[in-house]
Amino acid sequence: MPHSPPTAAPRQPAVYRSGDVREAVLNARRAGQRVGLVPTMGSLHEGHLSLLRAARDECDLVIASIFVNPTQFGPQEDFLAYPRNFDGDLALLATTGCNMVFAPTEETMYGPNHSTFVEVGPVGQVLEGEFRPTHFRGVATVVLKLFELVPADVAYFGRKDYQQTIVLRRMIEDLNLPFKMRVCPTLREPDGLAMSSRNVYLSPHERRRALALFRSLRLAEQLARDGERQVQTIRQKMEREIAETGGIDLQYVAFVADGTVSPVEQIEGPTTVALAAKVGTTRLIDNLLIQPLTPNR
Amino acid sequence: MPHSPPTAAPRQPAVYRSGDVREAVLNARRAGQRVGLVPTMGSLHEGHLSLLRAARDECDLVIASIFVNPTQFGPQEDFLAYPRNFDGDLALLATTGCNMVFAPTEETMYGPNHSTFVEVGPVGQVLEGEFRPTHFRGVATVVLKLFELVPADVAYFGRKDYQQTIVLRRMIEDLNLPFKMRVCPTLREPDGLAMSSRNVYLSPHERRRALALFRSLRLAEQLARDGERQVQTIRQKMEREIAETGGIDLQYVAFVADGTVSPVEQIEGPTTVALAAKVGTTRLIDNLLIQPLTPNR
Repeated sequence: MPHSPPTAAPRQPAVYRSGDVREAVLNARRAGQRVGLVPTMGSLHEGHLSLLRAARDECDLVIASIFVNPTQFGPQEDFLAYPRNFDGDLALLATTGCNMVFAPTEETMYGPNHSTFVEVGPVGQVLEGEFRPTHFRGVATVVLKLFELVPADVAYFGRKDYQQTIVLRRMIEDLNLPFKMRVCPTLREPDGLAMSSRNVYLSPHERRRALALFRSLRLAEQLARDGERQVQTIRQKMEREIAETGGIDLQYVAFVADGTVSPVEQIEGPTTVALAAKVGTTRLIDNLLIQPLTPNR
Repeated sequence: MPHSPPTAAPRQPAVYRSGDVREAVLNARRAGQRVGLVPTMGSLHEGHLSLLRAARDECDLVIASIFVNPTQFGPQEDFLAYPRNFDGDLALLATTGCNMVFAPTEETMYGPNHSTFVEVGPVGQVLEGEFRPTHFRGVATVVLKLFELVPADVAYFGRKDYQQTIVLRRMIEDLNLPFKMRVCPTLREPDGLAMSSRNVYLSPHERRRALALFRSLRLAEQLARDGERQVQTIRQKMEREIAETGGIDLQYVAFVADGTVSPVEQIEGPTTVALAAKVGTTRLIDNLLIQPLTPNR
């Protein structure tokens, strides 16, 4: 791949709006290029850009998709309000060396008779699935469609959407999808708030309150490091931390064996603590991988 | 493609049991070959062979898959009893010029944690879907998996499974699957019985009775040719024909606009008459495309 000299302005990625992107991707693969796809809903932040840089490091051709997918929003959720900033996104993408942008129209993605959905089953029905019952079928469906339209070698996702990565791994395995999946670390603001396109919804006051979420995750990590193994004990302390901050409607705090959505009662191995909360009207999720003081075996 | 001289024994197709088949298919496509896939559940008859010959005519590389897919059978259905004859199938395939057979093990197709299904929605819930509520999700799921494992250009299906072709077209469109679909005519025994692997279940007595199904479809065709447009009238006469034969448990007779599963009350354009019935313990389906005497407009 030709590289621009360092003084040149960043090169704008080529933008595709329809299924024509498929042929462009296949041409690159036929030419022996490794292709990376970073699916996004736009309104890009440093978290997304870190995925694009990971793709840039591993691939010859990097494609970002930008599509605010209606089927992963519930009827009372923020589909219409979801932040959109296409021109700003393009400018950011250019700085990462992204080669192509697939920004399909809604008509390209969902024809008037669309009725097919991918249902991943139990792994999508717990945690987020309890609060957003149609969310993961929307995610799985749109990601499968993106995979078909952009037949890349590797797809990049952020660990912030922990359960999404579990759901998509299940789909990739169950449906024999020829994709490798990379999961990249959660990026955080300097004060610890997990980066999210939805953070713009928060008032300054709410934003300060929201910090209690990551504080509670760090508290869990510290307690586990100090030798506490009882999930019930840790959860109570996390809930107290969040309650004392006030103004946070905690939806769940879950302790699951890392790489699964199976709950654990004791911290005996790598454990992901995942939580969701509403701060004002803004729903936030976050998670942290914690380890026991010494492995049990 | 090299052709065997006419006196040579038919060449045995190469048999694949795992996902390795994908690389073989991709190699052929990279070499510019057009690849055709004929998905089957084995126990091949002339109907299947006609699909293979259609693929042979249009493609450079022809692959048959053989897999009795458990997820498209209901709990009370004939999965275990379904006829299996792998060696006989291979011998028949060799006569068609089929190049590869993908005969995955059940473990290759369904891992122990498999939980992902493709749901096509309303088009799979009527007609067959009323009697076999999980049938089409099993069909859609396994066909998607076969498409991923055998990334062909074209896939061939028989019109005998009329609703299946509607369901799969919906899936291909909704999920942006890069497959062309060919639907080939129903093949029949000399006495009119639609060819089906399940016909072997019929006793000689049941087999004679089963002829009433195609007779009733031909009656519908004749009535429409004679100018009858009322579906209700035609259906009653079909039901009488079947009832007079006796020993047939008719499950439905549906009149739908051809290419859809939408019922019609009047024969005003190309109309498919589809039916299902149990003859003894054997469930049979059949259908016929009929036309009005003169188009309404």
